[in-house]
Amino acid sequence: MNTIKLSELGEFGLIERIRRALPVGRGVRLGIGDDAAWLENHSPWSLLTADMLLQDVHFNLEWTSLADLGYKSLAVNISDIAAMGGLPAYATISLGLPRDFRPDQVQEFYRGMNVLARRSGVSIVGGDTSVADALLISVCLLGYAPYRPVSRGGAKPEFDVYVSGTVGDAALGLELLKTNSSAIHRQAGAYAVKRHHRPTPRMELGRLLARRQTARAMIDISDGLLQDLAHVCAASGVGAVVWEEALPRSRSYRALAQNSRLALSGGEDYELLFCAPSAARAEIMRIAKRAGVAITRIGVCVAGSVSIQVVDRNGKELMIGAGGHDHFASNGRRKLVRRIT
Amino acid sequence: MNTIKLSELGEFGLIERIRRALPVGRGVRLGIGDDAAWLENHSPWSLLTADMLLQDVHFNLEWTSLADLGYKSLAVNISDIAAMGGLPAYATISLGLPRDFRPDQVQEFYRGMNVLARRSGVSIVGGDTSVADALLISVCLLGYAPYRPVSRGGAKPEFDVYVSGTVGDAALGLELLKTNSSAIHRQAGAYAVKRHHRPTPRMELGRLLARRQTARAMIDISDGLLQDLAHVCAASGVGAVVWEEALPRSRSYRALAQNSRLALSGGEDYELLFCAPSAARAEIMRIAKRAGVAITRIGVCVAGSVSIQVVDRNGKELMIGAGGHDHFASNGRRKLVRRIT
Repeated sequence: MNTIKLSELGEFGLIERIRRALPVGRGVRLGIGDDAAWLENHSPWSLLTADMLLQDVHFNLEWTSLADLGYKSLAVNISDIAAMGGLPAYATISLGLPRDFRPDQVQEFYRGMNVLARRSGVSIVGGDTSVADALLISVCLLGYAPYRPVSRGGAKPEFDVYVSGTVGDAALGLELLKTNSSAIHRQAGAYAVKRHHRPTPRMELGRLLARRQTARAMIDISDGLLQDLAHVCAASGVGAVVWEEALPRSRSYRALAQNSRLALSGGEDYELLFCAPSAARAEIMRIAKRAGVAITRIGVCVAGSVSIQVVDRNGKELMIGAGGHDHFASNGRRKLVRRIT
Repeated sequence: MNTIKLSELGEFGLIERIRRALPVGRGVRLGIGDDAAWLENHSPWSLLTADMLLQDVHFNLEWTSLADLGYKSLAVNISDIAAMGGLPAYATISLGLPRDFRPDQVQEFYRGMNVLARRSGVSIVGGDTSVADALLISVCLLGYAPYRPVSRGGAKPEFDVYVSGTVGDAALGLELLKTNSSAIHRQAGAYAVKRHHRPTPRMELGRLLARRQTARAMIDISDGLLQDLAHVCAASGVGAVVWEEALPRSRSYRALAQNSRLALSGGEDYELLFCAPSAARAEIMRIAKRAGVAITRIGVCVAGSVSIQVVDRNGKELMIGAGGHDHFASNGRRKLVRRIT
């Protein structure tokens, strides 16, 4: 089985394999195999997002397994739903497959994706497959909003700025992979690499922060902390001061990247960045505890302009390019990668 | 403006242009520009479909304008929603763009798409953009079901088989384009080419056929009449007899393709193919009149096997490959193109 090509298995054979490998989830009245999937809505509001991953633009198969890629393709979309305070429900997966791809490779991709789909309550309900010159993955995720969604636009001057988890790890992991660093094989490096391959979308945290509108503006960190904070600032019409010293760094990061700027500018951590009034501090710590995720206060929103100042422990401004850097996943090529949602 | 490249305009510049060109539609609480789109549900049931169009697999830019491509990318997805009896509502558009693409080309694409989006009540609420080696278009469409959706699986022996409009035109149009036929410039050829470039999704017809469950099984013709009827037969557990003579052919088709088999096997007509009990005949003619679309009875479902027999006016079986042909949009390359939804 593992040696046959997709062209031998055929289009219907492949779809049948995909269909058999996928559990039919809650609310799916009709999934893969008809013109469109028929789905139950869980609330009066839907959340819809789409993210595409292209070979040699967003990922490199030299150092990325197909299982990791399946996991990550879904994770980045779940993260977008989480950043609105929503819960993911139904996904379509469209795949462009090179002619010499094997069915077992497609199955490995779905195996990785399924690990996260089960864990997060996502049903894969359709999509499309085609031949393509390089592997392409286009995911669309439909979620629902149990509470009023949290946009990027609700920050006000004097609101606190928070981030979940630690930042810079995913970019560090990618750097180690790209340079084929021996640190990959040590604990600190392996942790960073894992954060690059299998980011954890902060679903439960996003939901809890939306429940009483504790977070007033929220985004997930895909392009890098500074760049994503800049999106929040632009949408909210505020500026921000970030205390460089306060950024939460993992033990791996402190061991391998302490003097880098990856915590500020590295992309793909998929942590939540959000703003809230100072009156919410105690509530936010309770939410952090309940979600089982660290939350760190890293700065404050300011009036007057939408620019971001990064300051050191003495309050001295660090010189950093305004919008952060392109995320490293662009693999060094000049980038034109942008999510619209 | 028309001479600058995307890389000069930049990612945010491009998105801003796309956003400005798109009207914010009904039910869109938050569209392009946040983590996910926030949408109002119009019924307890959603319909979700995704279709991908890849350069040199599904289309050829030598004979396809970007405006037509924008139109068609949305049309094929609307057609899937229509084939369930649903109404389309919200779309995400993910684009992979070659490095030398110009912003005005992207705008031309959206201009074509917008013509159909406005006409069909679709709001474009998000997506993704990236560089890519060839143009790729990945659309996901969320619709709603005002009535119980019509699947492919409800046909029974002795049900009539119907098709809307005429068949074979889109495949004929593609043949003319591929051979650079001079007929393209005459009325008959131009009509077929238009049917290839700008298919008409049968939204209102699909909705009316679902309203009282008049159609019991329904599909849209993307792969070819025989192949799509085979999907209905397989899902319903019936066979079918098709009267070759009864197939509705346009004047163009009769002028240019009369002796071909394109009406049976040509893809991409995006007409509706459906099955209904004979008691519904009068009702179906009323629906045809109300929707302003011709509907033709072309055969009957039979018990015993899921195979399809095509017979001539004397009831003699015509010898035709079981599953129809690959659709012509694969551009002659060996094909692995299959929709999952």
